[in-house]
Amino acid sequence: MQNKYLTSAGIAAALALLPGMGLAQEADTTPLNADIGFIFTTFMFLVSGFLVFFMAAGFAMLEAGLVRSKNVAMQLTKNMALFSLASLFYFLLGYNLMYPGDGWSMDGILGAFSITSLEPVGLEGAEPDLTYASVGSDFFFQLMFCAATASIVSGALAERIKLWPFLIFVIVLTAVIYPIQASWKWGGGFLDAAGFQDFAGSTVVHSVGGWAALVGAIILGPRLGKYKDGKVHPMPGSNLALATLGTFILWLGWFGFNGGSQLYMDTAGNVADISRIFSNTNTAAAAGAVVAMILTQVMYKKPDLTMILNGALAGLVSITAEPLTPSLISAMLIGGVGGAIVVFAVPMLDRLKIDDVVGAIPVHLFAGIWGTIAVCFTNDAASFGTQLYSIVVVGVFVCAASAVVWLILKAVMGLRVDEETEINGLDMSELGMEAYPEFSPT
Amino acid sequence: MQNKYLTSAGIAAALALLPGMGLAQEADTTPLNADIGFIFTTFMFLVSGFLVFFMAAGFAMLEAGLVRSKNVAMQLTKNMALFSLASLFYFLLGYNLMYPGDGWSMDGILGAFSITSLEPVGLEGAEPDLTYASVGSDFFFQLMFCAATASIVSGALAERIKLWPFLIFVIVLTAVIYPIQASWKWGGGFLDAAGFQDFAGSTVVHSVGGWAALVGAIILGPRLGKYKDGKVHPMPGSNLALATLGTFILWLGWFGFNGGSQLYMDTAGNVADISRIFSNTNTAAAAGAVVAMILTQVMYKKPDLTMILNGALAGLVSITAEPLTPSLISAMLIGGVGGAIVVFAVPMLDRLKIDDVVGAIPVHLFAGIWGTIAVCFTNDAASFGTQLYSIVVVGVFVCAASAVVWLILKAVMGLRVDEETEINGLDMSELGMEAYPEFSPT
Amino acid sequence: MQNKYLTSAGIAAALALLPGMGLAQEADTTPLNADIGFIFTTFMFLVSGFLVFFMAAGFAMLEAGLVRSKNVAMQLTKNMALFSLASLFYFLLGYNLMYPGDGWSMDGILGAFSITSLEPVGLEGAEPDLTYASVGSDFFFQLMFCAATASIVSGALAERIKLWPFLIFVIVLTAVIYPIQASWKWGGGFLDAAGFQDFAGSTVVHSVGGWAALVGAIILGPRLGKYKDGKVHPMPGSNLALATLGTFILWLGWFGFNGGSQLYMDTAGNVADISRIFSNTNTAAAAGAVVAMILTQVMYKKPDLTMILNGALAGLVSITAEPLTPSLISAMLIGGVGGAIVVFAVPMLDRLKIDDVVGAIPVHLFAGIWGTIAVCFTNDAASFGTQLYSIVVVGVFVCAASAVVWLILKAVMGLRVDEETEINGLDMSELGMEAYPEFSPT
Repeated sequence: MQNKYLTSAGIAAALALLPGMGLAQEADTTPLNADIGFIFTTFMFLVSGFLVFFMAAGFAMLEAGLVRSKNVAMQLTKNMALFSLASLFYFLLGYNLMYPGDGWSMDGILGAFSITSLEPVGLEGAEPDLTYASVGSDFFFQLMFCAATASIVSGALAERIKLWPFLIFVIVLTAVIYPIQASWKWGGGFLDAAGFQDFAGSTVVHSVGGWAALVGAIILGPRLGKYKDGKVHPMPGSNLALATLGTFILWLGWFGFNGGSQLYMDTAGNVADISRIFSNTNTAAAAGAVVAMILTQVMYKKPDLTMILNGALAGLVSITAEPLTPSLISAMLIGGVGGAIVVFAVPMLDRLKIDDVVGAIPVHLFAGIWGTIAVCFTNDAASFGTQLYSIVVVGVFVCAASAVVWLILKAVMGLRVDEETEINGLDMSELGMEAYPEFSPT
Repeated sequence: MQNKYLTSAGIAAALALLPGMGLAQEADTTPLNADIGFIFTTFMFLVSGFLVFFMAAGFAMLEAGLVRSKNVAMQLTKNMALFSLASLFYFLLGYNLMYPGDGWSMDGILGAFSITSLEPVGLEGAEPDLTYASVGSDFFFQLMFCAATASIVSGALAERIKLWPFLIFVIVLTAVIYPIQASWKWGGGFLDAAGFQDFAGSTVVHSVGGWAALVGAIILGPRLGKYKDGKVHPMPGSNLALATLGTFILWLGWFGFNGGSQLYMDTAGNVADISRIFSNTNTAAAAGAVVAMILTQVMYKKPDLTMILNGALAGLVSITAEPLTPSLISAMLIGGVGGAIVVFAVPMLDRLKIDDVVGAIPVHLFAGIWGTIAVCFTNDAASFGTQLYSIVVVGVFVCAASAVVWLILKAVMGLRVDEETEINGLDMSELGMEAYPEFSPT
Repeated sequence: MQNKYLTSAGIAAALALLPGMGLAQEADTTPLNADIGFIFTTFMFLVSGFLVFFMAAGFAMLEAGLVRSKNVAMQLTKNMALFSLASLFYFLLGYNLMYPGDGWSMDGILGAFSITSLEPVGLEGAEPDLTYASVGSDFFFQLMFCAATASIVSGALAERIKLWPFLIFVIVLTAVIYPIQASWKWGGGFLDAAGFQDFAGSTVVHSVGGWAALVGAIILGPRLGKYKDGKVHPMPGSNLALATLGTFILWLGWFGFNGGSQLYMDTAGNVADISRIFSNTNTAAAAGAVVAMILTQVMYKKPDLTMILNGALAGLVSITAEPLTPSLISAMLIGGVGGAIVVFAVPMLDRLKIDDVVGAIPVHLFAGIWGTIAVCFTNDAASFGTQLYSIVVVGVFVCAASAVVWLILKAVMGLRVDEETEINGLDMSELGMEAYPEFSPT
């Protein structure tokens, strides 16, 4: 009954409202029963949360598709392991670190070294803070953001980093680095107090993953043969169908990522805002993909599928700092610039001999910075200075912390597999199994 | 606590209701606070919308799995690009064209050449039309239907159509052709006034994609070698695991496609209707798959997986015109006939030398017509004459409009890749990349 | 606006509540309009149900990834067919058998041989039992559990069982065996009366699939060459990317599986419980994966990706019997033990020469038993004796019933493909098609 103007259901609904119309109109100004708002917001977090959860599968497929077949099983292992470790360590430490509860302070942080606990079972409707959502749903939702940050890193460092040092870095990132900087904004810390605007985390999530990946990629060095004889040697991904699937899954998950970051669905205004966010998010992704397609056609005479995929993702990252206030046209422009950034930044990184296997740094770091600055164009509450200041503060902190962790790991256990392992592929050497054992690469 | 009859929660809920039972009973006949209905319906659109969004991934995987490996990267590119272009052009033009707002008229259409705008941010609960849903959610949901229409076309014309002419067709289809005919039914136009019944779009969506694909396939001609020496040469899909995944994703998305088309979730009756729709949709898909499996076993002594997949999809298309009124038994019969249609129509198209790479025409056009007619069996509001008339009107319009666009594109830039490109595969020639570069086809 | 402490929306919401605060506070203790609870719970079932539906795709991808390429198309066919048949036969028989309606009795069961019917279309809000959810949503949700049970069997018996006998077993399993034993607990039968605790079905779903698979695997015998010359010959899965994708999809679906089993979302307490369930489910899965990774590293010096995948799944199965009452720490321990069970049980089955292709028996049966017993640690309502008694009763019934069906099928039509077919692969012999026709296995 898709005709929304005049349908039997529409009429029935209208008639149903008739007898009590006066009452209903009056009711509009009456606040909702607080329980109802609590149920709406909590359920919205759960739905958004499972969408963002699914992004773990999206990252896994994107990365498995963009590495060479000899490293696919390892890339899958890293993704499954990093999500699992993030789940455990964000619960054991990160969540409390991120939300110190009684305001952000060094005391609060130090006092927060306790594991996360949820509401008691079967609590009465009157007990919880009915103006927000259940702790369980908030934890579930926030965990997925933390895990996404770690997923960003795994792609950039693929095909040459050892499994265990990488996983130890993931633990530190998800238990400590991510939560501390996230508390500065989302835990009510000093960046929030300074007026920093980052709705769903272009900086707090994406640039953080991007900075950690950048520092790691520099310390780790490029893959063997990638920059030989002064030339860039492309190493095409082994399965673009998986990479495309991964991109679609990430795009799907982003509706939860940005939409859920509205944090409330207890009023008509909030749900209308979430709808705007869904539409803007989709439009920015589409624009990023189209711009990357057109630019690669113009620049290289052929559209480049991996650029189109990364263009869509860059569009998504770009709109993440402010998916609510832009008009659809603005969302299109913001996302389109994101797509352009990817097309120009990928060869730039190659010129710098920074080897980012899947393009995570252009997508998550560069488009994340762009998105954070673009907030100024559509949201009056944002000041250019504060946005820039926050980008720099977060960047310096994450780069410094990451560098310390990477360098300690390098000194203690080594970060990189040996040459023979890298040439033969990490799958056989490190795992003793192949992702596609029956298909011999040419 | 799966025992719904007697559980602690059940008892608790019952007890909780006891003190105010009289009040609650009374409340049942009181209309809901309009805000609540608005939140329910809007959130339902968002959830349904992201499910239908994911169908874009389903189409991409289905088609990537059913083309030969030398054309996989191109098929992925087409699917990613068509969804992105549909997102931009349905917003720039299509949505306003489809819902002229003040009734369907030529004036309305001509006046509609303005870009879509959503509600302002943070609107007050009292402002919007609280009897329906937010504009943002409606736009998001409707966009996904438009994009699905374009996805149907890409599969049928795979492995031989050039990228850019195809994408230009997509723009015209999603910006103009789809919205105009959709407005005739869902925009409150003359087909709606005539009593045409098409709940979620067996005709408005699926047959439209099917007609556009049919006209395109005829103009484009079959793949080289497909019908050589008077025989049909099968060209098996390169990855049936992807094709199966795509079918499951489409099946999942269809719950949003049909369920969301109820358009309201503001009453117990509406949500119960959506539940019926979910169950009927699932049953029709299952019946389509089973009938295709049994028929291919009987006719060819072996079940045919691609027929089973298309049988499930045909079952889904068949129930789409009326997923609400059928009983589960009727849904089974309607879907089962859809599955049979596919088994008989695929070889029929081959006899006509119409080369439909993925079976999109049998699934979306033929089963779409069947589904539109089948409405008469379960919905008293449908008249056979009106259903048939509407199928023909939409068909004539879409065929004529598509033919004009295809022929102009053919004349101006050519539709088809040259012979060498087709033989070598579109991936290397048109994109310069392969989907599975390390695996050499035999 | 991720900062939940102090945001414009938060302030707006707080202000909105101010004028009527006294009223709102009062309202908290007033029961909700019953319609609203009905809508919440019904929609929750639909969302949970589509998540569990998607597990069918998860099983299909997991199993397609873990069989050898010569059997992939057959495994896909089996999964698509089993879900479709389960959909039809659970509707025709199983659902009524499972919920005899007026209490569980032999009479009730015999009287239940009628097909499922849903509520009439467009029912008035006052008609249905507004204290629960719509029949359509309940049917949809419960169907998915029944189908999941059948999916478990297909993996264990892969690569050697004939298609049609397998599908006939699926019909009996989903129409009769599963519903009868499920009614003992979830239909209010004698196990429920005895105090058996199985929240979402570690025993009722997973062990049932596991027992049926175990009996089938024993009757069927191992694959040719699996246990030759007293040694176990590994037969690596052909596509670990698909297997990983399948695991992520199953993990996603499990949020609906366990969360939806709360059965009510009509109060703040219920939605908070569902949130706990989501968080516990995720934590248990993560712990299972991490434990399997660490154990395989320690025992075999290399982490094993397929063990990690099965470890995550075992963690999920383990928490399924009681995902609500555990703390996050308990969930971690329960899931972690599940992961350990898989690592030790897989080689144990091999020593017994029971050939379980995908590890379904360790994951679903052994971890299912563990999960059912682990309820005693966190839920005071559970008694060890009753849990054990129920595990045994269900196990004896399912083993006996399965054995009868398997043996009849073996006698009448044979269960196993002939030797040549098995060596050449079921795809070419039984289907006449290959999943990856262009890629020649080495």
